[in-house]
Amino acid sequence: MKAVYSDKHKSHDPQFFLVRGQVRKTTEQPERAERLLKGLADGKHTIIAPTEFGQGPRARVHSPEYLRFLEGAWEEWIKLPDYGPEMIANIHPNRVAGSYPTHITGKLGWHTADTAAPIGPGTWAGACASTDVAVTAAQMVMDGEDAVYALCRPPGHHAYRDMAGGFCFMNNSAIAAEHLRTKHERVAILDVDVHHGNGTQGIFYARPDVLTVSIHADPVGYYPFVWGYAHEKGEGNGLGTNLNLPLTLGTGDDGFIDALAVAEKTIKSFAPTALVLALGLDASEHDPLAALKVTTPGFKRIGEAVARMGLPTVLVQEGGYLSDILSANLTSTLAGFEAVR
Amino acid sequence: MKAVYSDKHKSHDPQFFLVRGQVRKTTEQPERAERLLKGLADGKHTIIAPTEFGQGPRARVHSPEYLRFLEGAWEEWIKLPDYGPEMIANIHPNRVAGSYPTHITGKLGWHTADTAAPIGPGTWAGACASTDVAVTAAQMVMDGEDAVYALCRPPGHHAYRDMAGGFCFMNNSAIAAEHLRTKHERVAILDVDVHHGNGTQGIFYARPDVLTVSIHADPVGYYPFVWGYAHEKGEGNGLGTNLNLPLTLGTGDDGFIDALAVAEKTIKSFAPTALVLALGLDASEHDPLAALKVTTPGFKRIGEAVARMGLPTVLVQEGGYLSDILSANLTSTLAGFEAVR
Repeated sequence: MKAVYSDKHKSHDPQFFLVRGQVRKTTEQPERAERLLKGLADGKHTIIAPTEFGQGPRARVHSPEYLRFLEGAWEEWIKLPDYGPEMIANIHPNRVAGSYPTHITGKLGWHTADTAAPIGPGTWAGACASTDVAVTAAQMVMDGEDAVYALCRPPGHHAYRDMAGGFCFMNNSAIAAEHLRTKHERVAILDVDVHHGNGTQGIFYARPDVLTVSIHADPVGYYPFVWGYAHEKGEGNGLGTNLNLPLTLGTGDDGFIDALAVAEKTIKSFAPTALVLALGLDASEHDPLAALKVTTPGFKRIGEAVARMGLPTVLVQEGGYLSDILSANLTSTLAGFEAVR
Repeated sequence: MKAVYSDKHKSHDPQFFLVRGQVRKTTEQPERAERLLKGLADGKHTIIAPTEFGQGPRARVHSPEYLRFLEGAWEEWIKLPDYGPEMIANIHPNRVAGSYPTHITGKLGWHTADTAAPIGPGTWAGACASTDVAVTAAQMVMDGEDAVYALCRPPGHHAYRDMAGGFCFMNNSAIAAEHLRTKHERVAILDVDVHHGNGTQGIFYARPDVLTVSIHADPVGYYPFVWGYAHEKGEGNGLGTNLNLPLTLGTGDDGFIDALAVAEKTIKSFAPTALVLALGLDASEHDPLAALKVTTPGFKRIGEAVARMGLPTVLVQEGGYLSDILSANLTSTLAGFEAVR
């Protein structure tokens, strides 16, 4: 399978992670990409450099206000007295209407959904490179490739139209889907990351033309806690085009594959002509953030099940953190996919 | 003037403060109360112990869901593996509808508006004691006292109906106002803290029976950044009963007194029969968080101006942080008030 990758992601090197009231180093580290590259090499996949598509594909998904904020955030930040090495929101205007703020501290709170998306000097460049990787893969599929893998870092599926969160800044999977939409009338996004794809859900929640399906650890006991429940089905014209399949913490291969079978039925009923697989690998039993217990052979079965859906597919890397088995899980997923197609 | 105080606030001893991406020690420290007590002693005011009013006055302002969260938060927290010494939200579901979470980490994000209200083992007890101080002062005014000062700590005016924020957990000024409302048909709250009283505004935003007026540093450049603008005037039945008077950063005594004159006109038009003064002292030129430049004689003029409004008054302590002049500014404010009454 062809795989798109750029080393420009390295400019985004976040540090801060607040967990259970304590500051730790984030698990979303540049080294993740090295391990994923090894997974591609082990599977003898072909690495392709991305094309630069500019702001257009990003602007189809994210608000101009948010894109302006992200692009200029660091330059505003370093004008503050005694600014810290990363931008982390200390205000978060939950659920109470307010006015769009003028001060960078206010904008930072307005545009972030948690403390896990610190912005540094290289974040904008790294996040833009990540969207180009996704769009290049989508374009290759539109141009006739059956399936292409996009090694996106930072990941994207927790990013909303106008909010960063959960290591994510721009929603690569959503951007790939919108790019596919310029050719395909209906597109489905299937998210197998262990965390609910809350940003992707939010972006398409009222949209009838993009089906969003997410299989993930039950938010009753796991991030993002307030989204990802089965009763969230879309709204307005999008009612019925969002499907959440939360899994009990500790679910293994068989339970995951059962959920994929449910996902497949809904996807078939929607009759899309292209698929985005939001490919988190953090459902692994060995992931440092893991809540599920998918094995390396289990990832092969996931790849097979997705391939059997028979749709032109853009595989967009989402989560999956540093473990000895991260490379092998990517190799296994792609091998499963290719065994069917 | 009679002043209500309890040393039970000491059980709330927060540490964490995130500012410009860096973790610092909070300025909302128990020692604040010692300095304010000195201010009362210097002014020869009489200290009265609070009466316990129970949950009733709190439940008039805060949702049962939020009160249950606050009361039980620490017990839930310490069941987490590797829990930190304080509860600080790492998710904050801004502006996107979600489901009320089950997990304590989710509830913590749901119920906090920023990272500046860490919850520790003694927070609930301390915050309850603070509401009793406020309600006791309100009851004394209802029973015939002309004016009573409530030495409340933690402060309250950034707390919403169901969210903590900005050092605040329960909104003492709002609780005092609601207690006054059991006798008085219309009550006004005048907030002179340097920070906009966003929680108080939020609680009464659609209410025609409680006028909220706040004089504060312009949120264009100052916390809370997304609320406190002049165009926020209330909504529904409460349209016109919220007045924000933002002051340019660096405004001194004369500018502050000018704003008080505007506030007085609106308060007179509303014709309340009782007043809550949300008495922050952090507009001081020497406050560590200061954005305005009110002098110690300036605070005397503020006390005089409020007293001239001629209303039975509950003075509720809000902000004002550790500086050499904190005691003197309280003494000065109360002296100004008493010089008129």
